[in-house]
Amino acid sequence: MAAPPVRPLELVPRFRNQGYAADDVAARRAWIEARAGVSLPLVAAFTIPSEQMRGNIENPIGAVQMPLGLAGPLEIHGEDARGVFYVPLATTEGALVRSYERGMVTLTRAGGVFARVLRDENVIAPVFVLEDAAAAVAFADRVVGDLALVKADAESTTAHGRLLGITPRPCGRDVIVEFHYETGDAQGMNMIAAATDRACQGLVERHGPARFLQFSGLSSEKRASGALLAGGKGKTATAAARIPAAILTSHLHVSAAQLEDTWRRSVIGHLHAHSVGFNAQYANGLAAIFIACGQDVANVANAAVGVTDFEVIDGGDLHVSVTLPALTVATVGGGTALGTSRECLSLLGCGGSGRARKFAEIVAATLLAGELSMAAALATGEFAAAHEEYGRNRPGADAPERETSR
Amino acid sequence: MAAPPVRPLELVPRFRNQGYAADDVAARRAWIEARAGVSLPLVAAFTIPSEQMRGNIENPIGAVQMPLGLAGPLEIHGEDARGVFYVPLATTEGALVRSYERGMVTLTRAGGVFARVLRDENVIAPVFVLEDAAAAVAFADRVVGDLALVKADAESTTAHGRLLGITPRPCGRDVIVEFHYETGDAQGMNMIAAATDRACQGLVERHGPARFLQFSGLSSEKRASGALLAGGKGKTATAAARIPAAILTSHLHVSAAQLEDTWRRSVIGHLHAHSVGFNAQYANGLAAIFIACGQDVANVANAAVGVTDFEVIDGGDLHVSVTLPALTVATVGGGTALGTSRECLSLLGCGGSGRARKFAEIVAATLLAGELSMAAALATGEFAAAHEEYGRNRPGADAPERETSR
Amino acid sequence: MAAPPVRPLELVPRFRNQGYAADDVAARRAWIEARAGVSLPLVAAFTIPSEQMRGNIENPIGAVQMPLGLAGPLEIHGEDARGVFYVPLATTEGALVRSYERGMVTLTRAGGVFARVLRDENVIAPVFVLEDAAAAVAFADRVVGDLALVKADAESTTAHGRLLGITPRPCGRDVIVEFHYETGDAQGMNMIAAATDRACQGLVERHGPARFLQFSGLSSEKRASGALLAGGKGKTATAAARIPAAILTSHLHVSAAQLEDTWRRSVIGHLHAHSVGFNAQYANGLAAIFIACGQDVANVANAAVGVTDFEVIDGGDLHVSVTLPALTVATVGGGTALGTSRECLSLLGCGGSGRARKFAEIVAATLLAGELSMAAALATGEFAAAHEEYGRNRPGADAPERETSR
Amino acid sequence: MAAPPVRPLELVPRFRNQGYAADDVAARRAWIEARAGVSLPLVAAFTIPSEQMRGNIENPIGAVQMPLGLAGPLEIHGEDARGVFYVPLATTEGALVRSYERGMVTLTRAGGVFARVLRDENVIAPVFVLEDAAAAVAFADRVVGDLALVKADAESTTAHGRLLGITPRPCGRDVIVEFHYETGDAQGMNMIAAATDRACQGLVERHGPARFLQFSGLSSEKRASGALLAGGKGKTATAAARIPAAILTSHLHVSAAQLEDTWRRSVIGHLHAHSVGFNAQYANGLAAIFIACGQDVANVANAAVGVTDFEVIDGGDLHVSVTLPALTVATVGGGTALGTSRECLSLLGCGGSGRARKFAEIVAATLLAGELSMAAALATGEFAAAHEEYGRNRPGADAPERETSR
Repeated sequence: MAAPPVRPLELVPRFRNQGYAADDVAARRAWIEARAGVSLPLVAAFTIPSEQMRGNIENPIGAVQMPLGLAGPLEIHGEDARGVFYVPLATTEGALVRSYERGMVTLTRAGGVFARVLRDENVIAPVFVLEDAAAAVAFADRVVGDLALVKADAESTTAHGRLLGITPRPCGRDVIVEFHYETGDAQGMNMIAAATDRACQGLVERHGPARFLQFSGLSSEKRASGALLAGGKGKTATAAARIPAAILTSHLHVSAAQLEDTWRRSVIGHLHAHSVGFNAQYANGLAAIFIACGQDVANVANAAVGVTDFEVIDGGDLHVSVTLPALTVATVGGGTALGTSRECLSLLGCGGSGRARKFAEIVAATLLAGELSMAAALATGEFAAAHEEYGRNRPGADAPERETSR
Repeated sequence: MAAPPVRPLELVPRFRNQGYAADDVAARRAWIEARAGVSLPLVAAFTIPSEQMRGNIENPIGAVQMPLGLAGPLEIHGEDARGVFYVPLATTEGALVRSYERGMVTLTRAGGVFARVLRDENVIAPVFVLEDAAAAVAFADRVVGDLALVKADAESTTAHGRLLGITPRPCGRDVIVEFHYETGDAQGMNMIAAATDRACQGLVERHGPARFLQFSGLSSEKRASGALLAGGKGKTATAAARIPAAILTSHLHVSAAQLEDTWRRSVIGHLHAHSVGFNAQYANGLAAIFIACGQDVANVANAAVGVTDFEVIDGGDLHVSVTLPALTVATVGGGTALGTSRECLSLLGCGGSGRARKFAEIVAATLLAGELSMAAALATGEFAAAHEEYGRNRPGADAPERETSR
Repeated sequence: MAAPPVRPLELVPRFRNQGYAADDVAARRAWIEARAGVSLPLVAAFTIPSEQMRGNIENPIGAVQMPLGLAGPLEIHGEDARGVFYVPLATTEGALVRSYERGMVTLTRAGGVFARVLRDENVIAPVFVLEDAAAAVAFADRVVGDLALVKADAESTTAHGRLLGITPRPCGRDVIVEFHYETGDAQGMNMIAAATDRACQGLVERHGPARFLQFSGLSSEKRASGALLAGGKGKTATAAARIPAAILTSHLHVSAAQLEDTWRRSVIGHLHAHSVGFNAQYANGLAAIFIACGQDVANVANAAVGVTDFEVIDGGDLHVSVTLPALTVATVGGGTALGTSRECLSLLGCGGSGRARKFAEIVAATLLAGELSMAAALATGEFAAAHEEYGRNRPGADAPERETSR
Repeated sequence: MAAPPVRPLELVPRFRNQGYAADDVAARRAWIEARAGVSLPLVAAFTIPSEQMRGNIENPIGAVQMPLGLAGPLEIHGEDARGVFYVPLATTEGALVRSYERGMVTLTRAGGVFARVLRDENVIAPVFVLEDAAAAVAFADRVVGDLALVKADAESTTAHGRLLGITPRPCGRDVIVEFHYETGDAQGMNMIAAATDRACQGLVERHGPARFLQFSGLSSEKRASGALLAGGKGKTATAAARIPAAILTSHLHVSAAQLEDTWRRSVIGHLHAHSVGFNAQYANGLAAIFIACGQDVANVANAAVGVTDFEVIDGGDLHVSVTLPALTVATVGGGTALGTSRECLSLLGCGGSGRARKFAEIVAATLLAGELSMAAALATGEFAAAHEEYGRNRPGADAPERETSR
């Protein structure tokens, strides 16, 4: 490693008010074009008003574009999501949209998807450092008795978040305290980070431990962990369907027994990998819908934890389900109001307040479609062939249109 | 769950040659606008020629836009990445770019980042089903002796992939066979899926097991697992730096001891969560750079597995490192050639062949910056405040410009 | 695999009343001696009255003997365990007792060990199979409202167990229901299995799902899992101590900084292994004390899950702790009343009712001693040498007697 | 935590030559009897000559006794284990021996168990600390090229161990080096710890890193981890069987479909628990056979990691298997030569050199029997009832003798 340079560093250019004016964005982009010797005409060709980027990005130089496709029809029988949906998916992975579409058509033909949000709370887990383990245990005891004040402090910072409970957990001389919140339709991490910061300051004032850190890592935000399966994070959602044998055959060229066999063999592989949960391609669907709909895409890391199950029932039909303990989604806040995100959410009837549970049900049903389609492709050996056909930049055979004429 | 509907399903409209012509895209979009009762002007305002979307998406209706910011300067002393870089990050999470920028400036001021690709191979693990465990063990023995033919079969399908070795693994009456490939500058999953499919057909022909599935799940593509830490996937990369105490103080308002303390407390939290590895915010940086640079964003699920380490050295300086066993990145194939992706890769000097290891080193160094910045924000208690300042859509204080005048 | 044999199988001989009479045990042993062509005089030389083995073993042929050593003094400041203890450890691993003794002496010299039982409940998690996911969610809702009857059913089977609560968890068309019990001084699995079986039958009668299995695997009895860290099983206990720098030097030839350094390096190794929790040698101490004290030794698999922490405090002293979420121990039931087990428990003042929490604190403090001693051996490089000295069947140097003369 | 006491500590009494003479053992026991106010007549009633305890325990005061039962017949078709075995199991858990016996009888009636050792190597993973990550990567490169000298150093310390290979793994500024050994018939940890210590000293002398620790934790000795599944430790063994439907019905009152259903539901539970692998009761069988046969019982923690699979085949028969990646067993060294251990090993024809692979096959087949029996008990709902019957100290119905008359 070289010695520190003596020359000044060249920062990305600064502008008044942090540089969200269109001219500032252009100037910043021109600076990097000149410095790197490249030309960025497509980055420049964005249509989001640059001032609207404030709060979503710093040092903006434009926008990236990612192709947007449509998969459906997806009939959902949720508590909030009811009806037939066409889901916007942003991706550059050929065959992905076709794969989800195929699953959706099959599910819809079979009568649709049952979907539910089973639990809805977000968790944050700061850690307090005490003098020793004895002090830590004593502090944990006091925290439990202090809920009313903790709640008052936390909720004083937010109009939307509600503190549901706290769970202190002594770990040596540390005490990790889990704060459980209801965050309404927002993903809510910034909201609950601020609320918890205030509450922790109050705890320090009243009970005198030396200090705390805002995150201990226990809550597994943007990470995969066993704790997500055990305790959840954000919305815990499920989606499931029963599919008659005849529809499996006609739409997926597969039997329920083949799908169950594929599931069992994949489960064995997952167990030997010590994977977190079991799934075929949650991350594909999550990334595509999160990018389209202005979600925090890094949350794919936690949201992709769950368990998919395939089972033969009634002598040849299929029951298929996904259980998603950490589906952190939002319809307000973050990138949800920004340009194409708002349009994509509106396409699903999920723009704005009161829609987060509906959106969660749609996401869960979408993932179910992906699991079904992927398992069928594996079971029939079509996977490689499908990617050969769709994953290349050349015209191929027309897509099947059979369904429309049925 | 309702009985299957008798009405025909309404598929997303089909067009000639799968509908990548501009008119087809517009017609498809108009169809969903009418059906959903929404208007999608921003989705329509894309500049990627629609025909170029072929191979990257199906049923296109336009594109989404995501704000693109610039973080740097980031000085890297890699094997392939050498010099000062400004990294394009696409995100809607306020404060993310500022956080990475802060880490980059600090690292660069300290003399830059050591980065290396330690291993470079991709893995795929099909599973063969034998009659019973005795047959499985016998099959595994035969596979080992059949490497030459397996290699010939696999490499007959690809100009770029090279089979490095195979490892059979009897699991009951199944045999999972790990195929290890060098995939050059491509992410390579489609390539090695096709190659392995061919090789597996050859094994079936020669050794007669009944059947195989192309994926067993053991290779943890787009999933988090212990196997990723043990065996890796794609590029195994590391980035590290030594940072003098004075620079920690001046740039991050923190000491090495505070950072190490923050690390240890977070590690305890991660251990109690049974997280896969340890990190502060890999997923944030990965998602942002993957979206910007046309990577397969679902790979965030595996690429976010790794281990960050902070340690006080030499009485007050800091050694900080990231070890990333499953960094699946590409500079050719997938979305890398598409519109803004190509521009973002070119910004880093990473467009096209021969650049994947360079790009991996840049990604690793970027994640290092994020870990450093996040740990400092936690250690000093600034995290909530920083998100308060940057994560809102309103003008705030100007960003610090101190560095430029140094 | 060969075809089934046509000859009759030769079962282990059967006797009246299942053969616990001394003569029956002798006859059974003579049978296997003759059949296997071996002589088992030491197996025969047991002193447990054979009739007392009923309920603890079937087909008895005698007993095994394992050497029993004594480690101490161990001063504990628990809630129930208060004073100085000498802990019986049954093992055949040379150096193990010396290692624990060394840690105990050091801890005691430093003022003793803080120990607490933080939570005390056992969990069992049967699974109900419903028609489909919709029925599963509906069933889960009904279970929550049925707590009073569930509790009455469960507690009707036991004088000691108390049902603390139930948590249904829909997983596709299954519903796993966690039953949380207080089991007093018994390990309690048989007790709560019977209680839960009754309660589940009641649920089936009242709510009509087709069937249930008594265990789903979710509660991780005799297994390692992330769920044990998240939710615990049996007693959650902690033990910790502060050790002055001078005592570290005089007793372990090590500094707090060296111990912390050893901890951090081992943590990195554990993270890369995706271990469940972090510890140096819990399993050694647990196996030794469980065998000595008539615990269910298979519970080592869950009890060995936890987190050890070493930290420099106050500029050179050490804070060391163990956190044990799944310490399943008992002072009544199982093997606790049998022969040498009862004597070993009595040695600790832990025989019989009302002593399980005390025993748990002693076990936790014992494990702490093992962690301390092992880390010191690693830090100083003495580990291999110590095993060289103690792990061989030959006279060596006398053990240090310095402590007695201090 | 109280201030350190000023009084002298009372150590366990010391004797000449570490006190293995019978009188010394008696005196030590008398000391603790007096000090604790208890009487230990059964601990005193041991028959192992006390001098033989040297190398297996320190501070001996006698021995514990644990009931020993016999389970069989178990017909095995291994590479080394061939024939019918009766397995000694030491336990205090009522019903355990009966459960394993039931599985063994069923397996034997079905034609016996296929068993194999698939791999045989032990791993130890010291960690070197370098100046920084750049130095670590350079050191790792040098280690690879230094294999010949490393091997010579390591093997100079042992007549039995053979170094198979080394794998360096840079982790920040640390380099964990995996040493893979063949350890013959010994469990081998002490042997390879000494060999590796020597080899590491050589590496330090030749390549100059500052220091190393003998264990990094990566090799998961006596711990559960994902790394055990990925890389194994000790012997990787498998056992499996095909069981005709008629035998399932007659012996276990269950169908293959019921067993597969039980397996699938338990797998779902294990996945939600993020368990390491999947099994029903490995730890029960392992603890019982390890205690009986003088194995290091703490190794249950790693040996209990594996995967059990149940599958319906041929329209109603069952294929059942266990895959055990970390079966650390021995027939020489440790406690294998001690008193009852030697007798129990001889009962299996496994005493002494050249028998470790045979013993591993027997252990694997035994665990298979336990999995089968437990799954059947769960599937039929008999589990609670069986424990009710056998887990109590009172005469019950006679055990079934049907088999002998068949």
